[in-house]
Amino acid sequence: MRIFVFLVLLTVAIGTENLNSHVFPRPLIIEYPEKQLRDELKCTTWRFVVETNNLSPWKTIPEECADYVKEYMVGPGYKMEIDRVSDEAGEYAKSVDLGDDGRDVWIFDVDETLLSNLPYYSDHRYGLEVFDDVEFDKWVENGTAPALGSSLKLYQEVLKLGFKVFLLTGRSERHRSVTVENLMNAGFHDWHKLILRGSDDHGKTATTYKSERRNAMVEEGFRIVGNSGDQWSDLLGSSMSYRSFKLPNPMYYIL
Amino acid sequence: MRIFVFLVLLTVAIGTENLNSHVFPRPLIIEYPEKQLRDELKCTTWRFVVETNNLSPWKTIPEECADYVKEYMVGPGYKMEIDRVSDEAGEYAKSVDLGDDGRDVWIFDVDETLLSNLPYYSDHRYGLEVFDDVEFDKWVENGTAPALGSSLKLYQEVLKLGFKVFLLTGRSERHRSVTVENLMNAGFHDWHKLILRGSDDHGKTATTYKSERRNAMVEEGFRIVGNSGDQWSDLLGSSMSYRSFKLPNPMYYIL
Repeated sequence: MRIFVFLVLLTVAIGTENLNSHVFPRPLIIEYPEKQLRDELKCTTWRFVVETNNLSPWKTIPEECADYVKEYMVGPGYKMEIDRVSDEAGEYAKSVDLGDDGRDVWIFDVDETLLSNLPYYSDHRYGLEVFDDVEFDKWVENGTAPALGSSLKLYQEVLKLGFKVFLLTGRSERHRSVTVENLMNAGFHDWHKLILRGSDDHGKTATTYKSERRNAMVEEGFRIVGNSGDQWSDLLGSSMSYRSFKLPNPMYYIL
Repeated sequence: MRIFVFLVLLTVAIGTENLNSHVFPRPLIIEYPEKQLRDELKCTTWRFVVETNNLSPWKTIPEECADYVKEYMVGPGYKMEIDRVSDEAGEYAKSVDLGDDGRDVWIFDVDETLLSNLPYYSDHRYGLEVFDDVEFDKWVENGTAPALGSSLKLYQEVLKLGFKVFLLTGRSERHRSVTVENLMNAGFHDWHKLILRGSDDHGKTATTYKSERRNAMVEEGFRIVGNSGDQWSDLLGSSMSYRSFKLPNPMYYIL
């Protein structure tokens, strides 16, 4: 009987001990989310300033946000945001009263707008490595970048609505054929014009180069009604679109 | 001995039972964060499209994001972001080579940029209620809006660097004196000009009104080097600043 009481008490003791030290390790439970929250806040704050164009040109993502950016890109966050941006753009496109002169234009950037370079960036730590143009050119020359699904949907919608589609990319003229092939394999067809950087454009910022090309469209009598891009340099400058749609991109910045 | 073995087994059984059903209630642990994560993602996605100007004019915050917006505004998130935006603006201001003609301008918006209306919005559910101009006017006429601390710091820095400060607000001329008093009580002094909406400006969008006033500055020979505002209508349009700084504001939208 004494053994019985001892064992019952032991049972209770083990149960209680379990409950106190293993099951609810209070210091851990209380401190971990606080630190996690602080680290997370640093990265959400960084992301806010990046996506709103408050940060001066930056070369790489902050080391402490490497996991944050990776989780965002491969998790549901990125997909939800690109889907939402395309939905808003589609609603706007439908609301526009198009002229019957075929002069209403929707501009699309290419990289991280129509085509995704995520397979490349997943091999280069999602923006933690300094941009390597030789390596990236090799990837471009493969011509295997997949479509961003929601952008393909928007692309087809605006075409169907009667917009003229211009593709305005920072890629070089020497990548024209591989870019055309890649776009077509990814499902993009029937654009009006694909504009790439010519030899005169090298050394210009993307903002200047893209503004000049938009100015030319306006001079030709086109109305720029919509513009989709992942970089502010796709959207700001002169001859800006009536409405611009900024896709997310926390991996790199182009001036 | 049989009793001993039985009790040892009982001890193990109780321990295991505890472990399975009370300690790690699996369905709860697995499902709750997933739903929480999904709801949170909806709101972070909404916030992304809002802060990047992807969303058409919106009147109120989504009901399902009421708690999210409140927590952001009263928690550390909002403060961290406004601090970071001001820090970036300050770094940029210091990097600028100012002319010696006194023509370099920094523009500040007033509401949610220099002055905080958070005391008002905390009484009106942080943007969940439709904007009530009668109620809001009463609040403005109190003249008790506090300064945004990091904006006051930036304001003093750019003055010290030699910028001419223009305040360009959507508030009406009839609120000039109470606005001046409020700004001064909150620590803002020595601005070059405070521009409010005159009788001719009513009915114009903020983008048009503010663009016209910036055009006039440029015509007078001023160089708009920096511009701080919480609305895209403070920053976009014509005669845009060389660099613009977008403060966060998930509570309301002004076209």
